[in-house]
Amino acid sequence: MHVAIVTFDGFSEIDTFVALGLLNRLEDKGWRAELASPAAYVTSTNGVTVQAQRPLEFANDADVVLFGSNMYARALSSNSALLDRLTLDPLRQTIGAIGSGSLLLARLGLLGTMPACAEPAVRPWLIEAGVRAVDEPFHARGPIATAGGRLATVYLAAWVIARSAGSDAAASALRYAAPVGDEDRFVAQVLDALRPYLPDAGH
Amino acid sequence: MHVAIVTFDGFSEIDTFVALGLLNRLEDKGWRAELASPAAYVTSTNGVTVQAQRPLEFANDADVVLFGSNMYARALSSNSALLDRLTLDPLRQTIGAIGSGSLLLARLGLLGTMPACAEPAVRPWLIEAGVRAVDEPFHARGPIATAGGRLATVYLAAWVIARSAGSDAAASALRYAAPVGDEDRFVAQVLDALRPYLPDAGH
Repeated sequence: MHVAIVTFDGFSEIDTFVALGLLNRLEDKGWRAELASPAAYVTSTNGVTVQAQRPLEFANDADVVLFGSNMYARALSSNSALLDRLTLDPLRQTIGAIGSGSLLLARLGLLGTMPACAEPAVRPWLIEAGVRAVDEPFHARGPIATAGGRLATVYLAAWVIARSAGSDAAASALRYAAPVGDEDRFVAQVLDALRPYLPDAGH
Repeated sequence: MHVAIVTFDGFSEIDTFVALGLLNRLEDKGWRAELASPAAYVTSTNGVTVQAQRPLEFANDADVVLFGSNMYARALSSNSALLDRLTLDPLRQTIGAIGSGSLLLARLGLLGTMPACAEPAVRPWLIEAGVRAVDEPFHARGPIATAGGRLATVYLAAWVIARSAGSDAAASALRYAAPVGDEDRFVAQVLDALRPYLPDAGH
């Protein structure tokens, strides 16, 4: 599984690197999560410069595409020259966003009528883009998901893993990231929240 | 407040960037958390190359010094030429580590008789260094703290903030990072865990 974490200047470090750290726990199963960017170097919201691992177009071929929140999300969402380089396909790809990253999903026509999770600061932008904002950490419909709040990235990454590699693999990655001594509660809390959105729900 | 996040090749992305993202929430209060490294570029455990923001010796002058876990922590802890460049001072600095980063605190003589939090994989190395490993997410004594498990970085960052800027400032940073809709529970859970280790405990 190739995972593209789409990373533009202004990216939120927590969103990007919590997703990258969790998803690369499945390296043994052939997963690889990498930063896909339109430039060789991108600089985060707090001024950290990171080397891109893949060009932006890697997202078009990846199995999973994730968009973190970004301090420039609103400007990015109206940058047609940039977004025209992305041709994502929900029939073939699992696609997710965190916080203001949902605005890019909306502009790429990937949300349809589904609501998106978002922090209060992001909600006016989503409403402006015709998207209903919900006060939940995680929401998915089929192969598309959104998460709200930096650390809800954990929910999004675990959903990506559970969807393609099963709940046990997701539990294993979560256990690795959990605070020591709190593993059982932490894993159960995240998987319980995801259960309604996993393919085997109710079976 | 100047915060040095000591970052070597092999660093854990989650530890480093969750700390950086949370601590830079206090930018308005004059806080600045930056990556301090012995080289101009360092590459993470999952192969992401990041530009250092400060030289390693910035840690000697910073108000707060944090060490994340590192895939090479054991080798780093026996690299005297590297560690001799660090002269940390618990009378003047707040110092913390996550996971195998505690091994560096031990080698720098900063743990004394205090125990350190650690994931099971790290415990043999700590014991070898003469440190008692505990199965807790967070433990502090005075100005020194350790956290165990990647996301226990949240506890460490919140403790650093609460210690210097008060519990309300810590709550505000935690609220920003929390999953949407789960803010109250999340903030209370972290602050409750920190309460025994904050200067005003019991007052």
